[in-house]
Amino acid sequence: MSVNRSATTLIDVPRGLAGVVVTDTEVGDVRGREGFYHYRQYSAVELAQTRSFEDVWHLLVHGELPDAVRGAAFRAETAALRRLPDEVRAALPAVAAASGVSGPLAGMRSALSLLGAAKGFRPVYDIDPEGRRQDTLVAAAAVPTLLTALYRLGAGLDPVEPREDLSYAANYLYMLTGSEPEQARARAIEQYLISTIDHGFNASTFTARVVASTGADVAACLVGAVGALSGPLHGGAPSRALDTLDAIGTPDRIDPWIRERVLAGDRIMGFGHAIYRTEDPRSRMLREVAQRFGGPRVDFAVEVERRVETILAELKPGRELHTNVEFYAGVVMELCGLPREMFTPTFAAGRVVGWSANILEQAADSKIIRPVARYVGVEAPVAVPHVA
Amino acid sequence: MSVNRSATTLIDVPRGLAGVVVTDTEVGDVRGREGFYHYRQYSAVELAQTRSFEDVWHLLVHGELPDAVRGAAFRAETAALRRLPDEVRAALPAVAAASGVSGPLAGMRSALSLLGAAKGFRPVYDIDPEGRRQDTLVAAAAVPTLLTALYRLGAGLDPVEPREDLSYAANYLYMLTGSEPEQARARAIEQYLISTIDHGFNASTFTARVVASTGADVAACLVGAVGALSGPLHGGAPSRALDTLDAIGTPDRIDPWIRERVLAGDRIMGFGHAIYRTEDPRSRMLREVAQRFGGPRVDFAVEVERRVETILAELKPGRELHTNVEFYAGVVMELCGLPREMFTPTFAAGRVVGWSANILEQAADSKIIRPVARYVGVEAPVAVPHVA
Repeated sequence: MSVNRSATTLIDVPRGLAGVVVTDTEVGDVRGREGFYHYRQYSAVELAQTRSFEDVWHLLVHGELPDAVRGAAFRAETAALRRLPDEVRAALPAVAAASGVSGPLAGMRSALSLLGAAKGFRPVYDIDPEGRRQDTLVAAAAVPTLLTALYRLGAGLDPVEPREDLSYAANYLYMLTGSEPEQARARAIEQYLISTIDHGFNASTFTARVVASTGADVAACLVGAVGALSGPLHGGAPSRALDTLDAIGTPDRIDPWIRERVLAGDRIMGFGHAIYRTEDPRSRMLREVAQRFGGPRVDFAVEVERRVETILAELKPGRELHTNVEFYAGVVMELCGLPREMFTPTFAAGRVVGWSANILEQAADSKIIRPVARYVGVEAPVAVPHVA
Repeated sequence: MSVNRSATTLIDVPRGLAGVVVTDTEVGDVRGREGFYHYRQYSAVELAQTRSFEDVWHLLVHGELPDAVRGAAFRAETAALRRLPDEVRAALPAVAAASGVSGPLAGMRSALSLLGAAKGFRPVYDIDPEGRRQDTLVAAAAVPTLLTALYRLGAGLDPVEPREDLSYAANYLYMLTGSEPEQARARAIEQYLISTIDHGFNASTFTARVVASTGADVAACLVGAVGALSGPLHGGAPSRALDTLDAIGTPDRIDPWIRERVLAGDRIMGFGHAIYRTEDPRSRMLREVAQRFGGPRVDFAVEVERRVETILAELKPGRELHTNVEFYAGVVMELCGLPREMFTPTFAAGRVVGWSANILEQAADSKIIRPVARYVGVEAPVAVPHVA
């Protein structure tokens, strides 16, 4: 053990900093026991039910919901930022070619990094709050353009230029498919995107704040967050929940499939959440969104959910297990025509607004986030051996 | 204030997690009061004085110094990884064009992201320790190739292909300039690179570990670290120290220039460190490296250092102020012909090995690093207003 390592008093806390308060925030919170989460002072579900994505984006980065005039101006302002700088657009075929095996999320990580460099983003501590906010708008507005262009290039298709007259969500589907989406689909994806903007202090949000606390530019923060989002422990792989539906296959196989999993103690993808002790409020809302479409796939999903809860009550009484956000998110994205490899990237297209709000809040703090490590290796110094 | 937010007990700690132990480590440590830092159990300065970069790289990622046979094998193994995959090489002109205003470090962030995607890096929790280590070698070995290619493309020159017969440091200078460096310069840069591999638990290292703790792939971790390194609070801008020398200009101006700064209470770039209460051991070693070259520039730097200490002793008795790593790092890199915009990127070419060791250590832990935030905004829920 090393001795005398530093004059600083070391503070021991639970592993992984669990429960350690790293910052105050006014962005939002999750109340797991109540099955409730909020952005600023508003229920996130209520926002998704009643507002546009752009209104909620304004709420997150400006701190308040816009009135009609301000909302229209913000929508126009952000829509104008959807088009990529020429140097970034020119680089996308090469980015897509290099990212082929890793998919659109890794491609977007690279392209967002390029975008920040191309736009000359400066360290957040070197610019004023309005300049920082502008950089978050530039980056977030470009995310759907980057994701859809990289997806299409990967599939051998030309990218579709953004349209300013469409909503954020409708334009996303438009750029992905090349045709203007039905209103119902655009609204369903918009509600999904709003519901994923923020969710307490998750790992990608923390990463964004750590990078922001060094004063790095907005792109550096977002690129770090995208990296953290790609980690399996971050959670959130809506396509896995669909894999559960596919594995079951038909209604008559629901009961035996679930019984086998429950008795074996296996995890069922799409069920269970670390924080909520009740139904996940996002799941409830997205089930309603899916049921607006109806059809056999939705009926099947609802039946699977119902049977899981019934069989659990029978086999493991007292254990609560509800669908999580992945379950109906996957169903909704499928209904809207999104390919599965775009599910997690689509999540990022909503979450980027939450990251933005957290970066702006962190940048106003100007205190670096830097804990310490305790050296527990062989006591130093040991004389360096000569090369044998 | 929000109430009832969670069943978890919140733990309050100093701002920025200062002094909070986030992990045990066997990578290394800094002993600020002793003016000593180490990698594993060995003095970092002694390693820089007696070993090759590749030997120390082996120490960091394998946990032990290699014998001669193993050292040669490791050098051959990593030298073979310097050449970029074709898709990444093909993308570099577009990356350089898009990164023009932001320079080689931002370009490297993008290109490293591309490299990880092109090589199909998988989440660290999905692969075995040997696979993770291999990914860190692939990434770190490519960093000099990426940096020098992006620098040359930005300057309108063709990239220079890596050579396997040169050392890591000599090949770096070779790829930068296109001609084989003098042995003295190659060794000086090698010693600088060894000295910057790690330095306690700095902000970029912490970022790499946060991303690794989600299980994300090695490229995601490194890209996050590069982002944090670009933040002004991370410290480390060796070109600023040269700016001090340039601003003073000539030996006769040293005293008035320094007196004016000291009396005004201004910070003098290249002097002062948050941790060391003694001379920075890196500074002492790099001064010796610089003095091997000699010449008026080195004499001038040594004189500035001497006068700052003398004038401080006179004007602010009791206040210790020594050169930090930036001061002589800048002098050494200038002596070796590196352009100033490559100083921080060159730092990254050494630090990437420290990040690698920390990522490997974190990946063996499998506990996500995720503290919490305390919501202090307006109490929720407030009913969402209708659009005005």
